[in-house]
Amino acid sequence: MYSFKNDYSEGAHPKVLAHLLDTNLVQQAGYGEDAYCAEATALIQQKIGNTDSEIHYVSGGTQANLLVLSALMKPFEAVICAESGHIAVHETGAIEATGHKVLTVSAEDGKLTPALIKPVIAYHSDEHMVLPRVVYISNTTEIGTIYSKKELQELYAYCQAQGLILYLDGARLGSALTAASNELTLADLSAFTDIFYIGGTKNGALLGEAIVINNKMLITHFRFSIKQRGALLAKGRLLGTQFSALFTNDLFFEIAQHANQQAMVLARGFQEKGFKFLTEPVSNQIFPIVPNTLLSRLQEDFDFHCWQKIDQEHTCIRLVTSWATTDQAVADFLQVVADHKG
Amino acid sequence: MYSFKNDYSEGAHPKVLAHLLDTNLVQQAGYGEDAYCAEATALIQQKIGNTDSEIHYVSGGTQANLLVLSALMKPFEAVICAESGHIAVHETGAIEATGHKVLTVSAEDGKLTPALIKPVIAYHSDEHMVLPRVVYISNTTEIGTIYSKKELQELYAYCQAQGLILYLDGARLGSALTAASNELTLADLSAFTDIFYIGGTKNGALLGEAIVINNKMLITHFRFSIKQRGALLAKGRLLGTQFSALFTNDLFFEIAQHANQQAMVLARGFQEKGFKFLTEPVSNQIFPIVPNTLLSRLQEDFDFHCWQKIDQEHTCIRLVTSWATTDQAVADFLQVVADHKG
Amino acid sequence: MYSFKNDYSEGAHPKVLAHLLDTNLVQQAGYGEDAYCAEATALIQQKIGNTDSEIHYVSGGTQANLLVLSALMKPFEAVICAESGHIAVHETGAIEATGHKVLTVSAEDGKLTPALIKPVIAYHSDEHMVLPRVVYISNTTEIGTIYSKKELQELYAYCQAQGLILYLDGARLGSALTAASNELTLADLSAFTDIFYIGGTKNGALLGEAIVINNKMLITHFRFSIKQRGALLAKGRLLGTQFSALFTNDLFFEIAQHANQQAMVLARGFQEKGFKFLTEPVSNQIFPIVPNTLLSRLQEDFDFHCWQKIDQEHTCIRLVTSWATTDQAVADFLQVVADHKG
Amino acid sequence: MYSFKNDYSEGAHPKVLAHLLDTNLVQQAGYGEDAYCAEATALIQQKIGNTDSEIHYVSGGTQANLLVLSALMKPFEAVICAESGHIAVHETGAIEATGHKVLTVSAEDGKLTPALIKPVIAYHSDEHMVLPRVVYISNTTEIGTIYSKKELQELYAYCQAQGLILYLDGARLGSALTAASNELTLADLSAFTDIFYIGGTKNGALLGEAIVINNKMLITHFRFSIKQRGALLAKGRLLGTQFSALFTNDLFFEIAQHANQQAMVLARGFQEKGFKFLTEPVSNQIFPIVPNTLLSRLQEDFDFHCWQKIDQEHTCIRLVTSWATTDQAVADFLQVVADHKG
Repeated sequence: MYSFKNDYSEGAHPKVLAHLLDTNLVQQAGYGEDAYCAEATALIQQKIGNTDSEIHYVSGGTQANLLVLSALMKPFEAVICAESGHIAVHETGAIEATGHKVLTVSAEDGKLTPALIKPVIAYHSDEHMVLPRVVYISNTTEIGTIYSKKELQELYAYCQAQGLILYLDGARLGSALTAASNELTLADLSAFTDIFYIGGTKNGALLGEAIVINNKMLITHFRFSIKQRGALLAKGRLLGTQFSALFTNDLFFEIAQHANQQAMVLARGFQEKGFKFLTEPVSNQIFPIVPNTLLSRLQEDFDFHCWQKIDQEHTCIRLVTSWATTDQAVADFLQVVADHKG
Repeated sequence: MYSFKNDYSEGAHPKVLAHLLDTNLVQQAGYGEDAYCAEATALIQQKIGNTDSEIHYVSGGTQANLLVLSALMKPFEAVICAESGHIAVHETGAIEATGHKVLTVSAEDGKLTPALIKPVIAYHSDEHMVLPRVVYISNTTEIGTIYSKKELQELYAYCQAQGLILYLDGARLGSALTAASNELTLADLSAFTDIFYIGGTKNGALLGEAIVINNKMLITHFRFSIKQRGALLAKGRLLGTQFSALFTNDLFFEIAQHANQQAMVLARGFQEKGFKFLTEPVSNQIFPIVPNTLLSRLQEDFDFHCWQKIDQEHTCIRLVTSWATTDQAVADFLQVVADHKG
Repeated sequence: MYSFKNDYSEGAHPKVLAHLLDTNLVQQAGYGEDAYCAEATALIQQKIGNTDSEIHYVSGGTQANLLVLSALMKPFEAVICAESGHIAVHETGAIEATGHKVLTVSAEDGKLTPALIKPVIAYHSDEHMVLPRVVYISNTTEIGTIYSKKELQELYAYCQAQGLILYLDGARLGSALTAASNELTLADLSAFTDIFYIGGTKNGALLGEAIVINNKMLITHFRFSIKQRGALLAKGRLLGTQFSALFTNDLFFEIAQHANQQAMVLARGFQEKGFKFLTEPVSNQIFPIVPNTLLSRLQEDFDFHCWQKIDQEHTCIRLVTSWATTDQAVADFLQVVADHKG
Repeated sequence: MYSFKNDYSEGAHPKVLAHLLDTNLVQQAGYGEDAYCAEATALIQQKIGNTDSEIHYVSGGTQANLLVLSALMKPFEAVICAESGHIAVHETGAIEATGHKVLTVSAEDGKLTPALIKPVIAYHSDEHMVLPRVVYISNTTEIGTIYSKKELQELYAYCQAQGLILYLDGARLGSALTAASNELTLADLSAFTDIFYIGGTKNGALLGEAIVINNKMLITHFRFSIKQRGALLAKGRLLGTQFSALFTNDLFFEIAQHANQQAMVLARGFQEKGFKFLTEPVSNQIFPIVPNTLLSRLQEDFDFHCWQKIDQEHTCIRLVTSWATTDQAVADFLQVVADHKG
């Protein structure tokens, strides 16, 4: 049974594995002080256009989020995010476990705006409440949408004016930056956020996220934090070789584009049948709303998430594509959709 | 310059990599619910002789330690370890960061005994002090020594009588279990500890430690803890395939034995020159005490840790071997030792 | 300017002070092991009808809440409360600072019901989300309402069936238990909650809350927690003498009744003018909705909270009475209301 | 049986109670924003000679310590103290519970010096270990000794040169500042520490410690921390009135001097019999070493701590005096000592 359940069902992209294998026997320093981490950092800094940024490699998204957020905040400070934000729901209270409250605001498309944040700031007026300090956004969002350049610029300008730190979770940043409607570059992220991370796990790596600290005033001694939270790999080369491969010849973008294209082919199949979507399909996660009769038929041959019940007869499903999604699997899936008599 | 600095200078053992590569394109469930983790667990449970034990795979030793210890203790409870214990010194306060005090006792050979623990228990008599709850030991210890079967049995009997939990850090468990003087088996560890972990990172894997919970009453919902601390890998298969390879045809033990043998060859070289050791060389870490003149000569061609100054003219150095330590490197090193005129 | 802003504007009730003074020179053991704490505990246990309950005295409500909740939960567990719950908003993230997520549900009257909790339990289905463990309620609620006996019984039955712990914040429990419509006794609270606290600070004491642990299986070694969080007073007699005084000859209830009666007199003044309330006035906090013209006039002579804007011309205000609220102050306030031409 | 067990066996000094009673019915703002806290702050600032210092009132010493230390440090930072330091042993891991390691050094007289701290700083050299950030001292120390002006000056100069924060626990600061051999003033503490607290609980108050922040760059938003840790009293006046009384007409010093004088009378009684002390008696805690035969006789009529066994026939005891220690009790005690035939 073919799975469209997520973008981490398979291992790593062959070119990522190749670099890992090629260097396997070379002796290197431990804990991320190896030549490959340095190599990857140079490649990413060049892409960002900021050789002064600080880059750290960690294993996964929840780890990146809890490391960054706990390093940014004093005990009584809090982070603001959308209700759909990964840190708010799907990280088992990882941020609270570091002692910080997560303040949520309802955001239909999963994106934060100054208008949504303002009432939170206004409400938290004294020492009987937490002090909002960081704004957490994700791109793509948890429901597949992306930020426009204007949206990100305005959000960052607002944050700077308010003394708020803007942090962007880039678990699926590859997909965001290669979406057809995308206007942002890695250099823009460096300019319009304080800190962000570039997701490897969901874009062709075995594991790994690259945390990019643009505003180095905000975090010092980050390697102490990484070690303390159990996130400093002895064989840091495992992360370095992969990110080095991903940022050689733009493999990172090529992989993400493949995933997006497969998602767009899937989306068109639904559109041709007149099906609607929960959010406009633009990235490697799409959310078509299908009749339950079709849902049952698809479940016979494919694995995917039922996202939410829409009404008695319709369900929103989530399909996710990746570097490994084959044309055949997409074609097989669409055949079932096309054959549906609704 | 060849390095004897640690056992994580190279990548993974070829057979470990092979299993990773062979399975790379097979779709699998995420978060450790893949077929390879299940495969590895079955193999380890068989080796332990306890199909009822619970096994979880995480990235590294500090992560394993903080996950286990924070899951075992209530906020006011504390863990006892040797002053040389890894959690006491070299984990950047990871245990304290989860809210718990680490109580240390001086132990010359790095090993805990009931006699060493008793005064700590006696001293902590009321609610103005923390409540000792867990005893942390490591095998091999941080200074290369190993526990005899009798020592472990007596320690566990004491812990059980006192209501203390015994947890064993097995970052270098492979080396311990294949030392010439070793009397313990994995099955013994299952019988004489409550929880232990089997180290992969320092024994042929790219990363990974297998936490074995023998006494399941002590920890529930451990996957919640793993997720919350950012330790649940989306592509958990990365850990499963490696441990599956390590426990197929006893590769884990074969690798460790190789490392030990290379260490013993090195040790003999020093013994033949009449040099002493900080602790008796039995595992893949040896601590010869060398004249500073030899030290300087060795540093020209080799990389290793200077462990501690012994006197004005002598230094204790640490040499570590691994699956990847070559005969040539050992021979070259010993040649320098043999050539030394002291 | 007379203040109806809260129930802690004055010091302590004269009888509470008297017991403190009378015993001032008697030598006593420290840390709550004095004769007065024992005296208070015996009096409270008798009132509860449970000599087996465990009682601890601490300084304030936020302290009581964070002590109890952090003692009840494992790191990945969470507490459910109403959106208006004190722990959710007005404790500066005290619960999150102990590592736990606070899950909120919208509850118009500030009270939780099984129907409101069920969806939260259903939603939190796996280890990617926190595990709900405690239900937090307050009586009176933060908006002055009280639980009926049936409501509390049903809620507790639901919690027990679901393996949830029920904890009641009784910062204003005196007011709740002496409200005209109240059906609950302290003995009922012992029967229908697992843990609750009896508020002294807002009912005639200088400071102090008595935490009552009915279900002793749920918390052990609580004095360790109290000491660790900085809540164990050296001169614990300060809390003991006050609670002893409060539970001698039912002073606790007498004080609360006085506060309620003054509040009801105030409420009638608004009702006579046809003004509405945010919630039905039953306890020592009332929330009349007044025209802004009257609001301005009242602010000239009295201090109180503006709770929320209702519309362009009306505001909900909060008035709080206490053991110290004088007839004269009430009469003066009502005169201004009566004189208002609306 | 008269107790010399501690300095918190009785309630408050009559003048402290008087101010509490006199103001009991005056309406005041809550949470430390009352007129009496302001009054106390003005008096203390004047005494310190620094009207720019920030002063906060909290309930007890452990609370003060955990509040200050957790506010001063980032998660990976640690505090250095003497092995006898209160935070190291007798606060149930309160500092670790806020996530920070306590690094201890052996100090025979309970006092830290640059020479004792230097090796700790040197040892903690990289991100695998915690980063020392704060130096914690107490005056008087836990074993009754006091810092000379030169000692404190040199320690502070060292801390400043090293980027370390110096924090002084003044639970028994009154006794220190009124010892016969004392050279320090409150103004000196303001000049030679970054933060310190003035202990009220052990010097005539019912409860309360005044935290003095000299270096305001180091802590911001401290009221948020106080609230979050459950330490912000609703009736903050309880702390304000007491400190106002203590710093009116130097009552604070007068009380402490009385305690010291009683202790010196006791000390002379032992000296006259030729008994030795664990540490030189200078403050309100003295540590005579007595024959076990005398110990048994004293225990018949008096309560006090047995501090430590010295040899088979001698024990060190701790005697503590306070504002309330009577001449009669001292005379009675000394009579037993004088009568001893050793």
